[in-house]
Amino acid sequence: MIKVILNGCCGKMGKTVTELSKDFPNIEIVAGVDKFLNKKYNYKIFSSINEIDFEYDVLLDFSRPESLEDLLTFSVAKKKPIILCTTGYNKKDLELIEEKSKLIPIFKSANMSLGINLINSLLKKIVPVLYKNFDIEIIEKHHNQKVDSPSGTALQLANTIKNSLSKESSYIYGRYGSKKRTKEEIGIHSIRGGSIVGEHEIIFAGTGEVIEISHKAISREVFAIGALKACEFMASINIAGLYNMDNLLKI
Amino acid sequence: MIKVILNGCCGKMGKTVTELSKDFPNIEIVAGVDKFLNKKYNYKIFSSINEIDFEYDVLLDFSRPESLEDLLTFSVAKKKPIILCTTGYNKKDLELIEEKSKLIPIFKSANMSLGINLINSLLKKIVPVLYKNFDIEIIEKHHNQKVDSPSGTALQLANTIKNSLSKESSYIYGRYGSKKRTKEEIGIHSIRGGSIVGEHEIIFAGTGEVIEISHKAISREVFAIGALKACEFMASINIAGLYNMDNLLKI
Amino acid sequence: MIKVILNGCCGKMGKTVTELSKDFPNIEIVAGVDKFLNKKYNYKIFSSINEIDFEYDVLLDFSRPESLEDLLTFSVAKKKPIILCTTGYNKKDLELIEEKSKLIPIFKSANMSLGINLINSLLKKIVPVLYKNFDIEIIEKHHNQKVDSPSGTALQLANTIKNSLSKESSYIYGRYGSKKRTKEEIGIHSIRGGSIVGEHEIIFAGTGEVIEISHKAISREVFAIGALKACEFMASINIAGLYNMDNLLKI
Amino acid sequence: MIKVILNGCCGKMGKTVTELSKDFPNIEIVAGVDKFLNKKYNYKIFSSINEIDFEYDVLLDFSRPESLEDLLTFSVAKKKPIILCTTGYNKKDLELIEEKSKLIPIFKSANMSLGINLINSLLKKIVPVLYKNFDIEIIEKHHNQKVDSPSGTALQLANTIKNSLSKESSYIYGRYGSKKRTKEEIGIHSIRGGSIVGEHEIIFAGTGEVIEISHKAISREVFAIGALKACEFMASINIAGLYNMDNLLKI
Repeated sequence: MIKVILNGCCGKMGKTVTELSKDFPNIEIVAGVDKFLNKKYNYKIFSSINEIDFEYDVLLDFSRPESLEDLLTFSVAKKKPIILCTTGYNKKDLELIEEKSKLIPIFKSANMSLGINLINSLLKKIVPVLYKNFDIEIIEKHHNQKVDSPSGTALQLANTIKNSLSKESSYIYGRYGSKKRTKEEIGIHSIRGGSIVGEHEIIFAGTGEVIEISHKAISREVFAIGALKACEFMASINIAGLYNMDNLLKI
Repeated sequence: MIKVILNGCCGKMGKTVTELSKDFPNIEIVAGVDKFLNKKYNYKIFSSINEIDFEYDVLLDFSRPESLEDLLTFSVAKKKPIILCTTGYNKKDLELIEEKSKLIPIFKSANMSLGINLINSLLKKIVPVLYKNFDIEIIEKHHNQKVDSPSGTALQLANTIKNSLSKESSYIYGRYGSKKRTKEEIGIHSIRGGSIVGEHEIIFAGTGEVIEISHKAISREVFAIGALKACEFMASINIAGLYNMDNLLKI
Repeated sequence: MIKVILNGCCGKMGKTVTELSKDFPNIEIVAGVDKFLNKKYNYKIFSSINEIDFEYDVLLDFSRPESLEDLLTFSVAKKKPIILCTTGYNKKDLELIEEKSKLIPIFKSANMSLGINLINSLLKKIVPVLYKNFDIEIIEKHHNQKVDSPSGTALQLANTIKNSLSKESSYIYGRYGSKKRTKEEIGIHSIRGGSIVGEHEIIFAGTGEVIEISHKAISREVFAIGALKACEFMASINIAGLYNMDNLLKI
Repeated sequence: MIKVILNGCCGKMGKTVTELSKDFPNIEIVAGVDKFLNKKYNYKIFSSINEIDFEYDVLLDFSRPESLEDLLTFSVAKKKPIILCTTGYNKKDLELIEEKSKLIPIFKSANMSLGINLINSLLKKIVPVLYKNFDIEIIEKHHNQKVDSPSGTALQLANTIKNSLSKESSYIYGRYGSKKRTKEEIGIHSIRGGSIVGEHEIIFAGTGEVIEISHKAISREVFAIGALKACEFMASINIAGLYNMDNLLKI
């Protein structure tokens, strides 16, 4: 049984992780940590990580960048792996993570969805094969309250494509006017509307055929499952280092 | 049996119309007209419309704007309907068509696809019902040799949407940066790649649900079928006037 | 301001309706009714409809067939419209609804989604135009816990198509073997997997072109919005009769 | 410059290969072979392979199983690679191919599309990662004249999935009735309509997310390009053996 401490257990993601952990028979959340003690779970909730003085296997974090230092100090002291699902780290935070990853196993991923990470891995394999004969375009769709265009995930996928090409390329965001597509363009198109949760599609359009790879997020459950998978994976890791979804997926 | 004269019978569309006319048991192409006599059909080909001195029902034109005047003069003299599937008319041409439509039935459509015209008609009905609760976006996809973005058909659909709204709206071509979608935007996204024939999709994204209406052209056959349908329709019309696909579809 | 009584206010749908009612400035939920008083709203909750002795405009019901008789008796006494979003009525229930609709306005719909009802209306218009030249197929997708195939909504759409054809037709559920499609077939395909909320797509495949109309449910919010729209609509109705989404959509 | 002999040059595929070979600057068709000498190309056409007595690099075959023996005998005598794009070989044919592949390099593929073969390769990699958490379904779409359901390519993809699973699985063709999906099912759904060229989609539906990989054939050009790519590949091979698209794609 893998014993997990869930930091940020009373937030939306904490709640979802708690619910879905019941589908993972080999995982037990042994304690939660949250400043806001407004939830009732079948595990004890502490208001600070430092109150925890019992044994565990993995610390799973869905909180805020501010708690990073405490969490890392705690994990290093306990010599236990930590999984960081929090986003929004600044440069100093990232350096701290890098530094501490020499002492303990640290898992960090900007997007905990198995599917998006799988597609990202696939792109590294297929873009070098396809790019000479196929034009590559990305369509992403999100709800009408999303502020940034394109989405962070679309940019991550585009960067993976760009880095897998053995030629220069440039992004183009929508098209207007009288100008043919060049072979160097990667079109990125941001659809916004209603309450669409999040969709990403990569189109490879060739002569006589089109290949499409798409990912649709249905709910935030997808990120909880990715995090619980990461718990399973990291519980077996005892070599210090920086890990991410690529290590877990092994594709 | 509807007797059709096919002007421009040796071009790509003329060839396709000739082939598909066999699937229309009530239609017979009785003569073709083309400057280039490089095809063999089971009907006689003349090099000028004015050589034709026998009876017919409908004149179907897939040629160039330059032949417009001759074709209209001929049709008015014969008192027979004409179907114009040629594109690229200038303002003077359009005025001439308008004028002659007071004397004979003239059918003119920018896009002879039944499907696109059907969708255009549907938009007039559903946009007034949906627009308050749904954000509207258009995605169109074409081959990488297409020069203009967005496609003429996408603009036609967008204009239909705009005119069906009881509020101001504006088009936005792709998105980039940090700015939420406004209710007034209609997003238009032009994907270009490979040899995609032509796809148009209208997305209505609401709270908790998404409706999509899409059209995919597979081959130029779609335009030939629309033209042959128009022949059937116009053969029964003996009132002078300007007709289009809306009259044919009656939706 | 339209004053709504929400019967079944403590169920999942009751909760969603309560939350989304805030987006409808002209609607106020003035009271809820539920046997289970386990929610806190900013309106009073009664354990029985008969405790309500104040003025209101519309009674909205998201409960169980068992409460039908009480609700109808109450509404007839008050001479006020009622909206029935409950499903699973038996034959006797339906006869009772029919009977009472001679005394008060009753709104009943098997699926409260605006989108599905809109598509159902569209089918009545376009199927008679398209069916001669297009083959019609339906694909529906739902989560892997759904017991019945095809979905009730897919069957409703298929029946609408069947009734709009001026020829005999038959449903075929998946294909296997060596047999060409006949013009009389309507293919219905049920995909089941993961946690897909609910998708329905109607495909019109013709020579050279394909038209697709699809609906994707993202969350149960879609049914709450339909119900609140129905409240707006029914508040203005004072003629007894049986109403449904077609009356609301007026397409 | 790679010198190619095109067997079956006057058929539909022969014509398409001839046209598209102009886009491959390093490939030259030096001769064609066809019983029917009804086409005019800028290379000489022979009525039998045995009339050819000049140097070449690769023999490309788009003909019929009946010519197999002659083609193999000729290629073995010339010690040159052969590419077999013909389908419909019987068991004896396949044994002959196997036997001769010990003497010369032979390339054989049931589907010459780069895209379908790429997707087939991808499935071998991702199915073992995904199958525990995702339900797998296949949708394929073809024109209404296709006799067999499901398509050969859909079955090939399904077999690749089945062989990549470390559990038993079974195919289900459409669903009807009251029965939940089991984890062992792979749903295969055959849509038939109009003139759809050929589409294959594999759906991985998980908790909270869906991944889709799809391939759309636009025209037979796609098979010509695959064949010309195979010419490039095989021209560099001088080790006897049986080769296919997996060798070419190296994914």
